[in-house]
Amino acid sequence: MISKVPAGYEDLLERPIVGVLGTVSPDGSPNLSPMRFTWDGAHLRVSHTIARKKFVSLQANPNYAFMITDPDDPYRCLEIHGWLVTVEPDHDAAFYLSLGRRYGDDDILPPGDIDDRVVMILDTTRFLVK
Amino acid sequence: MISKVPAGYEDLLERPIVGVLGTVSPDGSPNLSPMRFTWDGAHLRVSHTIARKKFVSLQANPNYAFMITDPDDPYRCLEIHGWLVTVEPDHDAAFYLSLGRRYGDDDILPPGDIDDRVVMILDTTRFLVK
Repeated sequence: MISKVPAGYEDLLERPIVGVLGTVSPDGSPNLSPMRFTWDGAHLRVSHTIARKKFVSLQANPNYAFMITDPDDPYRCLEIHGWLVTVEPDHDAAFYLSLGRRYGDDDILPPGDIDDRVVMILDTTRFLVK
Repeated sequence: MISKVPAGYEDLLERPIVGVLGTVSPDGSPNLSPMRFTWDGAHLRVSHTIARKKFVSLQANPNYAFMITDPDDPYRCLEIHGWLVTVEPDHDAAFYLSLGRRYGDDDILPPGDIDDRVVMILDTTRFLVK
């Protein structure tokens, strides 16, 4: 099932809003994390490290949900569903740094865990206005 | 495992912030929903109807996660974990209406689905600063 971005909600994908990523742990419980993201019209991209729990969870169960809430209206929300499709190395943390700048962090420095940084590319199959 | 509210984050539980409730569907995928809530020092309470998907999900898998983000600082977040412990009928939608007023909706009217309204009482076992 592929659905389109609901009309009038495109801005939530374009603006530098901190979203909430929902994943499922191997024990079956949900986990939530605030995440910066980019949107290319088909995929969400987030920065992560291979050592962390959320990454392990998504390898075991690639289903995710992502909530983007309008900072100016807490009842204007877009929920996105899909799967983790690709993990790419983030050489020199280039994606991590560009993401920081997108969110207004002009003085961002390379992270301490630079060698473990990856880009998680998330397929988007369903958009829901909540 | 029971943990305390992290010092300095109590306000996020007291203020009328719209949180994000994460549950797991019977198919193993996560679902997210914006939710109003109350906090009594031990439990979260949210309003719901027995007919909706999230309610069915929580009956099958009572694990939840709840994210509260400071509207004034998107990087100040509290994640709460626990289980759905009790479902009580919301007679005359009294809880639904009080919740609306807590969130500044002084003109709130009884909902159309008044007969299906319940109060979901969520145990809180773990608090994480994210």
